[in-house]
Formats: sequence, structure tokens, C-alpha cells
Amino acid sequence: MKEIQSRANPLFRQWLHDKAHAGRPGHLVWLEGPHLCQSWLQNQLEVKWLLIDQTRFDHPEVVQIRNQIDPANWVVISTSLFDALSDVKSHQGVTLLADLPAREIPVDIHGSAVVLDGIQDPGNVGTLLRTCAAAGIQTVIANAGTAGCWSPKVLRSAQGAHAGLHIHETRDASDWLRAYRENASSLPVIATTLEEATSLFSMRLPARAIWIFGSEGQGVSSEMLSLADHRVRIDHNQQYVESLNVATAAALCLFEQARQHRTGR
Amino acid sequence: MKEIQSRANPLFRQWLHDKAHAGRPGHLVWLEGPHLCQSWLQNQLEVKWLLIDQTRFDHPEVVQIRNQIDPANWVVISTSLFDALSDVKSHQGVTLLADLPAREIPVDIHGSAVVLDGIQDPGNVGTLLRTCAAAGIQTVIANAGTAGCWSPKVLRSAQGAHAGLHIHETRDASDWLRAYRENASSLPVIATTLEEATSLFSMRLPARAIWIFGSEGQGVSSEMLSLADHRVRIDHNQQYVESLNVATAAALCLFEQARQHRTGR
Repeated sequence: MKEIQSRANPLFRQWLHDKAHAGRPGHLVWLEGPHLCQSWLQNQLEVKWLLIDQTRFDHPEVVQIRNQIDPANWVVISTSLFDALSDVKSHQGVTLLADLPAREIPVDIHGSAVVLDGIQDPGNVGTLLRTCAAAGIQTVIANAGTAGCWSPKVLRSAQGAHAGLHIHETRDASDWLRAYRENASSLPVIATTLEEATSLFSMRLPARAIWIFGSEGQGVSSEMLSLADHRVRIDHNQQYVESLNVATAAALCLFEQARQHRTGR
Repeated sequence: MKEIQSRANPLFRQWLHDKAHAGRPGHLVWLEGPHLCQSWLQNQLEVKWLLIDQTRFDHPEVVQIRNQIDPANWVVISTSLFDALSDVKSHQGVTLLADLPAREIPVDIHGSAVVLDGIQDPGNVGTLLRTCAAAGIQTVIANAGTAGCWSPKVLRSAQGAHAGLHIHETRDASDWLRAYRENASSLPVIATTLEEATSLFSMRLPARAIWIFGSEGQGVSSEMLSLADHRVRIDHNQQYVESLNVATAAALCLFEQARQHRTGR
């Protein structure tokens, strides 16, 4: 167990710097609060450091978390230093630091997969990952332009979903998709778009698919659209709103797919 | 047309003060950006002031908006003053100020209605309102504890939905619901909850209903639950996430209801 009381401490200074890049390649993932720490530990993912606010050391939630981690990785720090490292106003005094899980882009997909094509808002990305985990999706591929999937804001919105997902951040998902479609066993690719598309609720969806959801403003890029086997739209009242929020649209697609194959319609 | 160049201008000072309370009773609603201005105007809602950044006065989007408004209500202000009144980093130089639409809580509901029972996050409230408008819902009742429906953050997430909705913010939605249920023609009330609930996708939903969606942490309050005729849950993989985001859950309910009654299942 380490103790840090001074801002001059080299480890503290390194974290303070690292925090601004949290979750990007070469930087640590920051899991703040008991809920995110627990979801990480439940899934037996590796831990680099456990930061504990000294005034919360004996809080039952903190005790439960530290008991699962080798004391050599505990770092007890003063409240003012913890404040400096925290994203939230009233923090709960526990943050887990871990290496970014290195996951190669898959050749075979188990179940369905979701491609995030330039979704910029971290809240949308987080909600979408939460929905993926809830819909039983395991594989998520995030294209360039998508918010960093391991950033603190995305982790907060995803509410623990990361632990159950294989997330692949890539510069060019279209390269991967083009190669993937040449596999004999490749799954059908479905993109959501408003143009030349079939209505989601009138379509017989495949039991397994690669879904592509596009950016908030532009939707799925034309390059990715050209690689889709099916284009679906979600019919809605367009008098007041042009489109649905992308995380909402994704939830409707994934749960409609699950509904069709659970009920055997 | 007015012109304001000085921070000492009484109208500017009043707006700067009013902005912090935007959308609350007795304060103005702030609709920033061409998209929100247009959706307001398309629905023939009244305008108090149109603020225009002087450097954007002749921008086509601004021209299109000001042409729909009596020049007596235009206020052209310097960029630095506009910056001070803007919520976004790179603003588009046009903001419409309007009185909060006064809408009494309804006795009769057209179509279905949605009750927001303490939903705190403005992004969730905005996304939910956008989903309501997209699902053809007209009536939304927001209970105490729900984020202010006319706040700038909610307006931004809702993407114009407000113009199509009758939104009633009330201190006690349970009082209203209790009285409403005594109407002979009252609609069935459905609450979403994880406990003692029927699975959404296995239930025959009524064509019209009062839906209750609860807060992010606690869900629907016990008082509101006691007034529900039906309790529904959305079955999902709970290994990694305990629940769905509330705006996601609401979308699944409202679009499943629409799907059942469009397809006549």
C-alpha cells in the first residue's frame, strides 16, 4: 500500500497528466466510483492501481472493493488530491486505474455486432454501449470520429457495460468490413438510414447481423452504406423531429431483432 | 429593430440575469440556433425577441428566420455580447426568446400521454421528449424532481420536439393522476418497473395509455406505482448492466405500442 499526501509526488503528477487522455491508447482507463469498479472486478479484468480517498478507506463499499485487490496496488490519497483527480463534484472516494484492454478486431463474430460510425457525443456512445450489453451484443467496433469508448464520460453513461463488451477502436472500420464480407460465413450487414430503406418493423430481421449506426448529424457514411446488405429506417412522426437520437434508434433495432427471434415471428 | 453594443444596456443585463433561470416559470424560454428557432416558428408559437449577432445578420439561415418575425422584435447585438448570452462555444448568432407556453394540465388526453416521474438528467429528458414527438405522443406531464423541460440543455437534446408537445410541469403528478383515474373515460396507466412486472414484448398493450417513466436511480416512485393498472419490464441481459437508460426504455415501450397497433398483432 502506498500513501500520497503531496501534489509533488511523481505518481500523482503522472496521473494528473494522464487523466486528460484517459482511455486513449497508451493511457490508463479511469473507473471512478464503486459501481464501475465493481463491474470491472466482477469480470476479472486486471487492475493497475486502486485510488482511495483516505477519509473513505473504511467505508463498506470501499472495503468491499479493496478486499478484491492486492494491497500492493492500493494507493491512499488525501481528499484534496482525490478531488483534483475526480470528475464529479461529490465523489465517492474510490477510483480504479487499469490498462486499456487490448482487443484485436475479430475475424469471427459471436452473436451480432455493432459498428459505431462516427458517433461523436460521449453520452450517446455510452448509452449505446449500455444498450448493446443489455441486448446481448458482445462485439462493438468504433470507427474514427466516434468518441473515445474508454473516456470517463462514456464509461459513466455505459454503467458497467464495458466489462461485458469486446470493444475495438479502429481508424478504418470500412477496411475491416470489406475484408470481413469476403468470409464465407460472414453475417448480413444492416445500416440504419432514412433513404431507400425498409421499415424496421415490417422487415424480417436476420437472427444475427452486423449493425451500423451513424453519426448524429450525417448518419452512416456513404462508404459504410455501400457495404451494407440491408438498409433500414424507423418510421416515426416527422412533423416535429427529423430523426431519433442515435442511441434510441439503435435500441429499437437491437430489441426488435431480439423480439423477432425470441417470439419466433 | 433595436441595437445593443454595451453591457450596461438594461435589456442586456436583464437577459444575462434571466438566462440562468431560462425556461422556469416567470422567465423566458431561450431557443438558441437556427434549428430550434425554425421549429418554434413553424408551429406558430409567439416570439418575444429575436437576438441576432451583428456579424451574422445577413447569413441566409438568419435571414430566413428574421423574415418570419416583426422587425420591431429584432435585437442586433455585438458578437462579444452574444457570446456572453450563448451556451455553446461556436454559436450560430441567432437566439429566439419567448414566453413559457402556459398549458393547463389536461382533463382529456388525445392519443397516449407520458408522465416523467423525477427524471433528473436534462439529456435524458430531452431525448425522451424527442422520442415522444417521434412516437406521436402529444401530452407530457413532468413531476417535481424532473429536470426543467424548457431549460436550454433539454431544448437542445429534444431537437425541436417541444413545438409539438403539450408539456405540463407540475408539483404533484400523483394528485393529477388520482383525479384523472376517476374519469369514466380514463386511459389505462402503465408504469415501467423491474418488480412484479409483465414483460413488455409478451404483453398485449392498449392502443392508448398513460405511461409513467421513473428516475434514473430509483425508478417510478411507490406512490405513482400504486396508481398504475399495469407494470411492465423490459427483459434484457443483466449480466453486465442492471437496467436500461430511461430514455431508451421509454422508446422501446412507445414504439412497441405503436408497432402492435400498426400491425394489428
